[in-house]
Amino acid sequence: MAMKSREIRLKNRPVGLPKPGDFEVGTVDLPDPGPGQALVRNLWMSVDPYMRGRMIDRPSYVPPFQIGEALTGGAVGQVVKSNDPSLAEGDLVESFFGWREGFIAPAAMLTKLPKLNAPPQAFLGVLGMPGMTAYGGLLRIGEPKAGDTVFVSGAAGAVGSLVVQIAKIKGCNVIATAGSDEKVAWVKSLGADHVVNYKTCGNLLAALAQGAPKGVNVYFDNVGGDHLEAALELMALKGRIVLCGGISVYNAETPAPGPRNYLNIVGKNLRMEGFVVSTFENMREPFLKDMSDWIGAGKIKWEETVKDGVENAPQAFVDLFTGANTGKMLVKLA
Amino acid sequence: MAMKSREIRLKNRPVGLPKPGDFEVGTVDLPDPGPGQALVRNLWMSVDPYMRGRMIDRPSYVPPFQIGEALTGGAVGQVVKSNDPSLAEGDLVESFFGWREGFIAPAAMLTKLPKLNAPPQAFLGVLGMPGMTAYGGLLRIGEPKAGDTVFVSGAAGAVGSLVVQIAKIKGCNVIATAGSDEKVAWVKSLGADHVVNYKTCGNLLAALAQGAPKGVNVYFDNVGGDHLEAALELMALKGRIVLCGGISVYNAETPAPGPRNYLNIVGKNLRMEGFVVSTFENMREPFLKDMSDWIGAGKIKWEETVKDGVENAPQAFVDLFTGANTGKMLVKLA
Repeated sequence: MAMKSREIRLKNRPVGLPKPGDFEVGTVDLPDPGPGQALVRNLWMSVDPYMRGRMIDRPSYVPPFQIGEALTGGAVGQVVKSNDPSLAEGDLVESFFGWREGFIAPAAMLTKLPKLNAPPQAFLGVLGMPGMTAYGGLLRIGEPKAGDTVFVSGAAGAVGSLVVQIAKIKGCNVIATAGSDEKVAWVKSLGADHVVNYKTCGNLLAALAQGAPKGVNVYFDNVGGDHLEAALELMALKGRIVLCGGISVYNAETPAPGPRNYLNIVGKNLRMEGFVVSTFENMREPFLKDMSDWIGAGKIKWEETVKDGVENAPQAFVDLFTGANTGKMLVKLA
Repeated sequence: MAMKSREIRLKNRPVGLPKPGDFEVGTVDLPDPGPGQALVRNLWMSVDPYMRGRMIDRPSYVPPFQIGEALTGGAVGQVVKSNDPSLAEGDLVESFFGWREGFIAPAAMLTKLPKLNAPPQAFLGVLGMPGMTAYGGLLRIGEPKAGDTVFVSGAAGAVGSLVVQIAKIKGCNVIATAGSDEKVAWVKSLGADHVVNYKTCGNLLAALAQGAPKGVNVYFDNVGGDHLEAALELMALKGRIVLCGGISVYNAETPAPGPRNYLNIVGKNLRMEGFVVSTFENMREPFLKDMSDWIGAGKIKWEETVKDGVENAPQAFVDLFTGANTGKMLVKLA
């Protein structure tokens, strides 16, 4: 008998903040895998802020999601049946076939998880895309030097919390923002030197400046908006802005104004650089080695916020934008 | 008898577009130069858009001009009396003592003009700061490759017109904007492949897109505002934005919005980098060699818009912002 898989489809394109009603659950039958294919049961799936962009119908580096079709995203699962010599039943694999309980795919589109001392879902977080985003973005674009001040916005998120810790490993003074006192306490426990609750601090620029008496050398931006403007004021000469995302503006119904003070980039000789994580593909080996060494040495910690069941994936995704998660937001599928 | 020098002083800080009444003329006596000093009569002075920023009272990479004091800026002049062995009467020197007819300064603050086949005022333009700005900004930050599409805004200005020509020398497809049909014709005569009159073209993005079917690899921004937003839409993956200035927003009375579509920097993997020209100091030798070779080979042309007399320097400066100049705006002082 065919295995059944529930999956989440885009019902309509969200306007502003996404709602669970923008999504719907469907069910498909999964037959036996054909030659070269494998049948996989997903264990975990990832929801990530960047997916918001794919819900808009516009040209981008990845094509937009289509109405009525299942969404995609990072997932880890276990091979149930394999019709390819490279995979055996029970193998743990990473794929881009998230938002569903199971799937059939060519073995070539599946990556066996490396044998590292970490639970499978870590390959959706610290050892996966968010980890690579933090590692590649900070080290290759930010180029932090020991003694530099690094400012990380959204520091209680999956990416931000890793940037904080990698910057500390590199000997930097780290200032950060987060959206609740609990998150602030957690980010401090990760080693950040000065952490601001941006919802209660009043003047964000003044609150941040206290932790950066010599200015900011590297700003890792996950937030945009007032955070980016404050950073542009605080940047030291020849600083680097790692433009990772702008969660504060992803849901704007009309385009939000860009940073009014962007000409600081001229006067202070700044570099602002964006990236998509695939840019760092050639850093995969040092990334996995460094990260697993650091995890082994107790230098990298992480948290997970977990929802159960594919039917709750839309709520998990929506919750990203209200700050309901600390660390990596995950959906447990089996 | 002491030589007299008229000089231009900042009377009050301009609000919005500067007016000639924001400046006043004063006269000082210049005695004989002391030991190690020289007395110089200026022949030419430069007015440049960046000077607008120095009229605002704020911390920056150069300190703001002070009310009641003479302005400063690039100038070339001739030594009248020297009290230092490094300089002789008649030597042509470059200095930062513009906005005045003459001055006394330590010889160490004066640079003898290199012996190149160009008139002295070229050292305020093609062979001076604007030339170095174009050369260093385009080549070091823009990193154009043959076949790339380079977009230059404000292409009839001192910097933009040189960027156009250097990009053509490097084998690029060049698209550009200018503010009148005459300027458009001139920029085309410099070799630009597609030039848009931004005042009459209607939809700027659509007009530019016609010249960039494969997108823009390098954008050299002198203008900001709608030009920068159009460029962000047109940029190709991994493009470079050379942020040289933003003449469209220098006179904004409240901070102008930044580019609403700046998140293209993330999705398209862009780098946007600002600079101050001193960054390129270590490129001075190749700059002077390349530029004089290119001038000799007829590959670099330039125009000058000239006002006579120090008393007309304020009007020359104001005219920069209404586009009255084609090529380098200069004031002839003697």
